[in-house]
Amino acid sequence: MAGNTFGTLFTVTTFGESHGPAVGCVVDGCPAGLALSSGDISRELRRRRPGVQAGRSLGASTARGEADEPEILSGIFEGKTLGTPIAIIIRNTSQRSQDYDALKDIYRPGHADWTWEAKYGLRDHRGGGRSSARETAGRVAAGAAAKVFLAGYGIEIRAWTAAIAGIEAPGPDEPEFDFEEIERNPLRVPGKESAERILKRIEELRSEGDSAGGILNCRVTGLPPGLGEPVFGKLDARIAEAMLSLGAAKGVEFGAGFGAALGLGSQMNDRPLPDSAGLKGLPPDVPGLSWQTNNAGGMLGGISTGQALEFRVAFKPVPSISKQQQTVDRSGTIRELVIQGRHDVCIIPRAVPVAEAMTALVLADLILLHRSSRA
Amino acid sequence: MAGNTFGTLFTVTTFGESHGPAVGCVVDGCPAGLALSSGDISRELRRRRPGVQAGRSLGASTARGEADEPEILSGIFEGKTLGTPIAIIIRNTSQRSQDYDALKDIYRPGHADWTWEAKYGLRDHRGGGRSSARETAGRVAAGAAAKVFLAGYGIEIRAWTAAIAGIEAPGPDEPEFDFEEIERNPLRVPGKESAERILKRIEELRSEGDSAGGILNCRVTGLPPGLGEPVFGKLDARIAEAMLSLGAAKGVEFGAGFGAALGLGSQMNDRPLPDSAGLKGLPPDVPGLSWQTNNAGGMLGGISTGQALEFRVAFKPVPSISKQQQTVDRSGTIRELVIQGRHDVCIIPRAVPVAEAMTALVLADLILLHRSSRA
Amino acid sequence: MAGNTFGTLFTVTTFGESHGPAVGCVVDGCPAGLALSSGDISRELRRRRPGVQAGRSLGASTARGEADEPEILSGIFEGKTLGTPIAIIIRNTSQRSQDYDALKDIYRPGHADWTWEAKYGLRDHRGGGRSSARETAGRVAAGAAAKVFLAGYGIEIRAWTAAIAGIEAPGPDEPEFDFEEIERNPLRVPGKESAERILKRIEELRSEGDSAGGILNCRVTGLPPGLGEPVFGKLDARIAEAMLSLGAAKGVEFGAGFGAALGLGSQMNDRPLPDSAGLKGLPPDVPGLSWQTNNAGGMLGGISTGQALEFRVAFKPVPSISKQQQTVDRSGTIRELVIQGRHDVCIIPRAVPVAEAMTALVLADLILLHRSSRA
Amino acid sequence: MAGNTFGTLFTVTTFGESHGPAVGCVVDGCPAGLALSSGDISRELRRRRPGVQAGRSLGASTARGEADEPEILSGIFEGKTLGTPIAIIIRNTSQRSQDYDALKDIYRPGHADWTWEAKYGLRDHRGGGRSSARETAGRVAAGAAAKVFLAGYGIEIRAWTAAIAGIEAPGPDEPEFDFEEIERNPLRVPGKESAERILKRIEELRSEGDSAGGILNCRVTGLPPGLGEPVFGKLDARIAEAMLSLGAAKGVEFGAGFGAALGLGSQMNDRPLPDSAGLKGLPPDVPGLSWQTNNAGGMLGGISTGQALEFRVAFKPVPSISKQQQTVDRSGTIRELVIQGRHDVCIIPRAVPVAEAMTALVLADLILLHRSSRA
Repeated sequence: MAGNTFGTLFTVTTFGESHGPAVGCVVDGCPAGLALSSGDISRELRRRRPGVQAGRSLGASTARGEADEPEILSGIFEGKTLGTPIAIIIRNTSQRSQDYDALKDIYRPGHADWTWEAKYGLRDHRGGGRSSARETAGRVAAGAAAKVFLAGYGIEIRAWTAAIAGIEAPGPDEPEFDFEEIERNPLRVPGKESAERILKRIEELRSEGDSAGGILNCRVTGLPPGLGEPVFGKLDARIAEAMLSLGAAKGVEFGAGFGAALGLGSQMNDRPLPDSAGLKGLPPDVPGLSWQTNNAGGMLGGISTGQALEFRVAFKPVPSISKQQQTVDRSGTIRELVIQGRHDVCIIPRAVPVAEAMTALVLADLILLHRSSRA
Repeated sequence: MAGNTFGTLFTVTTFGESHGPAVGCVVDGCPAGLALSSGDISRELRRRRPGVQAGRSLGASTARGEADEPEILSGIFEGKTLGTPIAIIIRNTSQRSQDYDALKDIYRPGHADWTWEAKYGLRDHRGGGRSSARETAGRVAAGAAAKVFLAGYGIEIRAWTAAIAGIEAPGPDEPEFDFEEIERNPLRVPGKESAERILKRIEELRSEGDSAGGILNCRVTGLPPGLGEPVFGKLDARIAEAMLSLGAAKGVEFGAGFGAALGLGSQMNDRPLPDSAGLKGLPPDVPGLSWQTNNAGGMLGGISTGQALEFRVAFKPVPSISKQQQTVDRSGTIRELVIQGRHDVCIIPRAVPVAEAMTALVLADLILLHRSSRA
Repeated sequence: MAGNTFGTLFTVTTFGESHGPAVGCVVDGCPAGLALSSGDISRELRRRRPGVQAGRSLGASTARGEADEPEILSGIFEGKTLGTPIAIIIRNTSQRSQDYDALKDIYRPGHADWTWEAKYGLRDHRGGGRSSARETAGRVAAGAAAKVFLAGYGIEIRAWTAAIAGIEAPGPDEPEFDFEEIERNPLRVPGKESAERILKRIEELRSEGDSAGGILNCRVTGLPPGLGEPVFGKLDARIAEAMLSLGAAKGVEFGAGFGAALGLGSQMNDRPLPDSAGLKGLPPDVPGLSWQTNNAGGMLGGISTGQALEFRVAFKPVPSISKQQQTVDRSGTIRELVIQGRHDVCIIPRAVPVAEAMTALVLADLILLHRSSRA
Repeated sequence: MAGNTFGTLFTVTTFGESHGPAVGCVVDGCPAGLALSSGDISRELRRRRPGVQAGRSLGASTARGEADEPEILSGIFEGKTLGTPIAIIIRNTSQRSQDYDALKDIYRPGHADWTWEAKYGLRDHRGGGRSSARETAGRVAAGAAAKVFLAGYGIEIRAWTAAIAGIEAPGPDEPEFDFEEIERNPLRVPGKESAERILKRIEELRSEGDSAGGILNCRVTGLPPGLGEPVFGKLDARIAEAMLSLGAAKGVEFGAGFGAALGLGSQMNDRPLPDSAGLKGLPPDVPGLSWQTNNAGGMLGGISTGQALEFRVAFKPVPSISKQQQTVDRSGTIRELVIQGRHDVCIIPRAVPVAEAMTALVLADLILLHRSSRA
């Protein structure tokens, strides 16, 4: 498959350049009979716009005042999915293409300007074209459909900002950690005080014309055991692929992750326990299990255990900084560059709904694939 | 696609259980006219067996004295690839299935025993069945073909043991680092002294009945720019998927990786430089570039820059330990378990050729996909 | 893959229901740098509307006065393809959904009403929903892009009406056959006199409230040898799949086709001749060939020979007839049915551009796949 | 995907050249827990060898005395499928490669010799290499697994010889038609007297050094409604693709087929009837239907109706004839050619089990895909 489709059965194809007429997606393979509304999609798209939600500028919003209203073109009839492709478009309403004229022949450091030209011989330079984070609006719209599908299984996906610029948010086992707080602050930090400390640091960096990296955490609960297709479509392999398809992602780890590399087998093996409560979807004669710990992060051999799926994603700092930089232009000449305009200092808060969407797409696909496991 | 095929154009399908008649692979899409011999494949398969190669036991070898001689069944004629599927089988010659009778109804901690049953309703319990590392022999055989294809482009893939049990090997920029040393010691450590320190620790752990995790590094040189299919088939996304398809992998990072999450944009942006030497395969009118640093790890926007591709993979400790553990059996009863037999203390040395093979398969596929980029 | 995407490298995903907001397509994998305009797409879409083009009613037009103006949402910048997905939508402007209220609970004979419900549990009953021929507008738009790509190789695809209601149009070897005439008459018949005879029969059938089947012929010239992926992606297998994906198609044959079943080997083997003029794209040391006859229809072993690709497609009569029929409704009750409104008597004339589009999509895909054949 | 894999969920990859070490297949996606034995596969492979089965030479057997004993390498444990890839190999035991030395540089008329060279630049000339019918042994082995899976649904696939050299066998509605007779005569003709007439004609053609084409019919009963993935993975589209992937196939038609092109809508629309017996797998509130006739051949809109799936495939005469022919060699010189050895006069009898196998693979895949239709 060409590179704009993700998934095998529950698939999404995204399309669109940052400053073209629209971005969007086609979701194919979403089962029929699911109650899905435009509101389900709008709600997720709004979460991509933290500044607006917060009611004040937080330095983590984009300059673009996009309404991001999705238009559903197909696949839903009388409030239910038809089993046919769901096409959704989101118009690019407020782009100012001329802002980018100065960047037409310049390769911005840390951006994909040159690599796209090296691959395709040409590019839409306006706002990064298709390599813009704008493309992820299509993913979020598709993920909204996947989330509704997963909700029917009792599966819930929650991502949050775990660290920005080295300042860590509380972890799920710490007292300050508060799931409700994630959606209350535009930084998606699960703790009010941490959010404020991080915000302060972001404002400093903004005034210095610099940007920050960070860590995103994701936890999925309610997963049935058995999801993941060995040996190449493992649950963690699919999630890793999905996370590294995010623009500035530089790494991913599951459960104990890189920490597991330091541990011993006797420490890292999670101890199984009988779980007479059972788990949904188990074959006959296979006993229910739970585990004393979750170093594995929710899978063994790439197949879900029914524990929480836990992973972390590292993001590099936003490459668009207003500090002066040196780069090269299309003629091969060294150029001084100061990027104008207002940019996110850190991508993590806006990556939260995108990471959730991609996770939802992986899981929806794996659920459908799993339906073929047994005769 | 079902879960045992990897790739879009240059594909591999692996098959086989640890204690069935054979493991193997079918490589499809390998271009015709490539000089490929049985020796190319045997050589890589031998690298999966470090203990034997070293001429003495190093605690990192398996108990199984497998010859691992590949038989090529198709796809090669008079020493050249035909463009048809290359089927390769490796017989499982020395398995002793009865050794596993005691484990038939027990779910080993840290293994995929229970998850396979949860998914499929049954499993081949002998030696882990298909979830065994034995399956990777098929990957290594396929990767050997991909490596030969890549060699024609001047692409070289080198993986090594970067750390075991917290003891780090020298990095590529340190004086002790020695590429030649990697193949000289069975631990795949790029430094003689480090190899000895790590070996000592491995022997300690073995005597304690425990196991260790570690880090594998990989560097690919000679890559042309332009490889990677945005937005879902990015170079890093594909590598991440490939690495997390390895049995005990728990994380992957590219370039500065998780460290990038701590840096600032002004530090992490790699500065482009004009490179009049040019790079292979650039479209007309696109200037050659090089970069002052390589925090990005060889790609921007998921497309190769032509710099070295650099990534690291974290592996958890081998779950088969001889210390006593508590677990659960098929009847749902808690059981004491002491795993018999001789097992690797750390998977990294044997994962080195497998990681290289998977990397080769990703890159061969991306090279073929890239042939369709321009009209 | 879910069932709305066609192709491996040059792919199309279509979406849309007949009476939803829009139909359309996403073309992915179209190589970058191709000059493609909205006009290229409009032109093909207009060919789907023969009645309008002819300037008078011909009994082969639909009741729907659709403008069918495509809107290109992505993938093209400054007149050239970017190598990114090309999303095209065509609004459903003049649908009158209430016309279909009477059919809401009735299964029309010869239509897919019941089978869609049997599969999905529900359907959009308005105008056939997604099973409507309206869906093919997205295919034609995508095919227009593929045609432009193929034109760069000198490949030309021409389909025409070979027979309707048993009245045959002249064949390519007959004197009356006139390629120019195909686009001059709305029936797509390659001969003026035949067109008039067929039109007369169509008008008779219309007055009787009945409909007719027919045969579509397609000839592709300028194909390089070597297209087709053995053993499952053969040129003829892919074309057959494409043709049977058309709504009312009931059969396809290549070259001598069903006639070959009656012949002897000594008659059917096409005799090769040396062709010193050579053919484009041959490997070194492989001589050019031509053939004295073309019973094979342009391929041997599923790989193009460089001769004309020739095939024929049989279509059943349009199932929407105004004669009274008996059928069953959703409650399982027998019902009398008279289908109201104005419908095509024969689908062939409007199938001509769709068959060409699907052929173009197959060939564009096979050209890209063929780029990976040799090392 | 490269061209040697067929299917999306229930997939087969075949490998092997006619005179290489082995041919075979990997079946991936076969659900776990299915009782499958080596005997199930041997039985189908034996049906590919009608001469042997008949106990005397019938002119429709090959010269090769192959035992065709399958070896199952993986995927089955204690008599049941594991859900893992099923690899099966069939050794090429009795090939005499030197017989083909004379053909090394000659392009046989009607064969794929030249097109393979035109595509790949080289070929294995021995016995046609991979373009040999020998490749279909892998398909038949895979199809045997699919048939066992389908048997669990009550689905039965029966193909037979409908005509050879213009002599027609009785049709299913004629008194002479006898399903039991198909397996009793090596020509796979469903009528004893017809079989003898056809055999006589075959012997005449053999003595003349010529060959014959023919028609194969296939009927599938027991299909649940709802199979087929609109709009590109329709049941008929998938079957057509499968049938045209057979070596000498030149056409396929469904139900009334090309005859439908001559009929009127009022004749061709099959009349639905209430069927209170219901059908397996229908969603709630969708009534059961049957049909008075089956011009549609078992599907509407590409989705199965639950009626018998009926199709016909046209095959050209075997191109290997012993009459003298003129052709061209690798140097581009015209050559006289007399093909030595003993070859089938007509491919149909041996195509019967292959067509059944491919049909089984399509249906098994569509059943698994259908499991994702509804939420």
